[in-house]
Amino acid sequence: MEFLVHMEVSQVPEGPEAEVELRKREAVRARELANMGILLRLWRVPGRRENWGIWREKDIDALHEALGSLPMFSYLVITVHPLASHPNDPNLVRGLETELGS
Amino acid sequence: MEFLVHMEVSQVPEGPEAEVELRKREAVRARELANMGILLRLWRVPGRRENWGIWREKDIDALHEALGSLPMFSYLVITVHPLASHPNDPNLVRGLETELGS
Amino acid sequence: MEFLVHMEVSQVPEGPEAEVELRKREAVRARELANMGILLRLWRVPGRRENWGIWREKDIDALHEALGSLPMFSYLVITVHPLASHPNDPNLVRGLETELGS
Amino acid sequence: MEFLVHMEVSQVPEGPEAEVELRKREAVRARELANMGILLRLWRVPGRRENWGIWREKDIDALHEALGSLPMFSYLVITVHPLASHPNDPNLVRGLETELGS
Amino acid sequence: MEFLVHMEVSQVPEGPEAEVELRKREAVRARELANMGILLRLWRVPGRRENWGIWREKDIDALHEALGSLPMFSYLVITVHPLASHPNDPNLVRGLETELGS
Amino acid sequence: MEFLVHMEVSQVPEGPEAEVELRKREAVRARELANMGILLRLWRVPGRRENWGIWREKDIDALHEALGSLPMFSYLVITVHPLASHPNDPNLVRGLETELGS
Amino acid sequence: MEFLVHMEVSQVPEGPEAEVELRKREAVRARELANMGILLRLWRVPGRRENWGIWREKDIDALHEALGSLPMFSYLVITVHPLASHPNDPNLVRGLETELGS
Amino acid sequence: MEFLVHMEVSQVPEGPEAEVELRKREAVRARELANMGILLRLWRVPGRRENWGIWREKDIDALHEALGSLPMFSYLVITVHPLASHPNDPNLVRGLETELGS
Amino acid sequence: MEFLVHMEVSQVPEGPEAEVELRKREAVRARELANMGILLRLWRVPGRRENWGIWREKDIDALHEALGSLPMFSYLVITVHPLASHPNDPNLVRGLETELGS
Amino acid sequence: MEFLVHMEVSQVPEGPEAEVELRKREAVRARELANMGILLRLWRVPGRRENWGIWREKDIDALHEALGSLPMFSYLVITVHPLASHPNDPNLVRGLETELGS
Repeated sequence: MEFLVHMEVSQVPEGPEAEVELRKREAVRARELANMGILLRLWRVPGRRENWGIWREKDIDALHEALGSLPMFSYLVITVHPLASHPNDPNLVRGLETELGS
Repeated sequence: MEFLVHMEVSQVPEGPEAEVELRKREAVRARELANMGILLRLWRVPGRRENWGIWREKDIDALHEALGSLPMFSYLVITVHPLASHPNDPNLVRGLETELGS
Repeated sequence: MEFLVHMEVSQVPEGPEAEVELRKREAVRARELANMGILLRLWRVPGRRENWGIWREKDIDALHEALGSLPMFSYLVITVHPLASHPNDPNLVRGLETELGS
Repeated sequence: MEFLVHMEVSQVPEGPEAEVELRKREAVRARELANMGILLRLWRVPGRRENWGIWREKDIDALHEALGSLPMFSYLVITVHPLASHPNDPNLVRGLETELGS
Repeated sequence: MEFLVHMEVSQVPEGPEAEVELRKREAVRARELANMGILLRLWRVPGRRENWGIWREKDIDALHEALGSLPMFSYLVITVHPLASHPNDPNLVRGLETELGS
Repeated sequence: MEFLVHMEVSQVPEGPEAEVELRKREAVRARELANMGILLRLWRVPGRRENWGIWREKDIDALHEALGSLPMFSYLVITVHPLASHPNDPNLVRGLETELGS
Repeated sequence: MEFLVHMEVSQVPEGPEAEVELRKREAVRARELANMGILLRLWRVPGRRENWGIWREKDIDALHEALGSLPMFSYLVITVHPLASHPNDPNLVRGLETELGS
Repeated sequence: MEFLVHMEVSQVPEGPEAEVELRKREAVRARELANMGILLRLWRVPGRRENWGIWREKDIDALHEALGSLPMFSYLVITVHPLASHPNDPNLVRGLETELGS
Repeated sequence: MEFLVHMEVSQVPEGPEAEVELRKREAVRARELANMGILLRLWRVPGRRENWGIWREKDIDALHEALGSLPMFSYLVITVHPLASHPNDPNLVRGLETELGS
Repeated sequence: MEFLVHMEVSQVPEGPEAEVELRKREAVRARELANMGILLRLWRVPGRRENWGIWREKDIDALHEALGSLPMFSYLVITVHPLASHPNDPNLVRGLETELGS
């Protein structure tokens, strides 16, 4: 299952060093989640401390755990948008074409 | 540039045949836009006549034109969320690793 | 997976007979969904043409299909609230106690 | 009477030990309320410090007291959604069938 | 139990005679509900087709039935605000004083 | 004139003793306002630090003064809903019946 | 008592002649209300079918009646903002100065 | 040009003396602005630390300067509602009548 | 004075010919307003029947008249955002530099 | 591409000197961005610590960088409104006329 996830950094840890350290750990964890096929895409909202991401997990509990594993988790306001398959989704269409040998 | 686009079908054309015909043309156009690399992904909002999509175009005018080319355009309430690159985006990270031969 | 689902009847079919007939078919389908273990609970919002329900399905696509199978589907504005397990959920606690023989 | 209750943790007690201690007491109280048949179900909102619960009490004053007995009460923003019976509620339907010997 | 109920007339029946007739029946039913001790108070929102009322019923199902018995019910958007007792409520304080012989 | 007044305690004085003391003074003032016929009814919003009240004063300036006389005034976010007489108000109907000797 | 009143024309009577006629009657009534000292000021919201007005009446029931006497009343969405005296209001200050002979 | 201006005191200076002093200076400045014909009317929102005012200035820059000259300016959240002339405004009508010798 | 103006086409005239004709007249009037120095800039909101514009007029009444002169005026929901000069506005800075001979 | 950008100063650095210094640096950077053709126009929202600006950049990433280069960036809540070309935009019309030699 795929999810559209919005995150807003609501609170920053005090002290610039602590923030730099935290962002470094966040980047490492994001790469791990990407390598595990859980975090698919991530974009910034221009001008804001917010991001949009496409996440993939087997169920909502697993998604909650993946989100909770982010080092910045306690500074984030997260909104999960559940997604259902759309018959016109390019991924789905290509998959069907592949299966059908077209 | 990539965009997160939300669409809501606010109004349906009268008559079930007209609607079936329109949805068929919409599917055809969606596949064309996918083949052109403009429509990247599309998901349904579960239980609603709404969808979320990831679109890619060279600028906002081109995106507006692509959206306007949908047969259902005049029945849609569309919201475009501009997206900026995020340093932790898996796509970007993989691209950099490829460039660097890592 | 369980889901909290809110439904609002936004539009009623014209003619009192048509509405009575539709509500009868809706009741039949609701009972089927209950017997299949998909619709767990359903409550009215007092004074409103709205309801809250607890639904259980294996994933979001299956939930979307179950919602779409309601005869009143095209008259409903539906909001799906995804739910994750809570460590203090009585159901979960009782399950663990049973497993542990307590 | 049953109630749909939404809770948001708006403020955390200072110090990680105090929080751990508080969450332990909260879990104990939640189990007591479950054993008394007051707290029926509890779910997490994925990615958020919020939960949805189904509560049962004889009236609204008793519900207010049950909510106020939570150790975390003063850190919560609570919203009570009153619920009325729905003729299609699986619980009600099964109850009627049992009464009627069906 | 007492409830604060807000009502908005969202739609008026067509034809001035139909409306006059409906309002007459509404007034009759309101008086019946008042005589039964269910409708305690009713006020207009100045300048609007809305009202605020204090209703008393034994539970939420009974309240839903009382609201549904209004001839204008299908033209109303109703919001029920559940109320709990307040220790400083003049009614409560006077009751306690009477019981205590003060 | 009667008013529907909503109050939310937005901020609590520091220290549990100060709060207990303040709530005691608030209860005393509420009883005085009740005895003066200004505060007619008061209810808690279940699960929240909010209340709904029915207040009666000769004009809005007098209401503002009555609200400002509450010891907790500076900790409250207050919303005044002006009320007009409703022809179906049980109080009004009974008054008219009494006048007419019915 | 003075009131800040916002009005929005939500619906126009069909046919341009009917509208012109209605607006003429509205202007006549507005002048009457002005001459009676009830309507003090009236402004347009630029670019919108909305207006802000300062109204003066002895109580809220009288205000409701004045608003209801507008020929366009059934086409208006009205919001009444109750106003209390402000110690720095120029009118009040001048009044006090006049009373005090200053 | 006239403006409808809403002000909310979002933050109070610390210490009761500082606040008293500030309010005194605010009253002095309000009287000056009234004498200059800039602040025409001022009302309190009952029960709130908010006010509504009618202001008159030659343009928006001048209004911004007048608002910025308030001693409490840095504690205020201000909303300016631009106003256009309304043909039914009593001031305008009287002005026209005077000009026309009626 | 300059204004930021948002327009939404809320309602379209019936019949495609009527709409084409209307849009042609709108374009003609927009060019006239541009030539008069009243309409400075105009942009589309991508994917929507909305636009943002920068307008310049001597006062708000004149702006209201300019907006009302648009052939599509009765199909528009318009929001006027008043603008004050900003000390860092490039136009202002350049103007000052020119005056100062820098 | 052009963007409409709204900024709100949500938080001020402590100490009046620090603020004066910061505003001076902000003005310097704003002039640089203006000279680079990135910041086209800037206006104050009257009475508020907010501004509206017209920005021009080659893409959204470049815009994000330009916004992030403002010395006040970490004190701002920024909203980017993407803009598409409008056929009636005076700039566009004049450009076409120039190209066509009209």
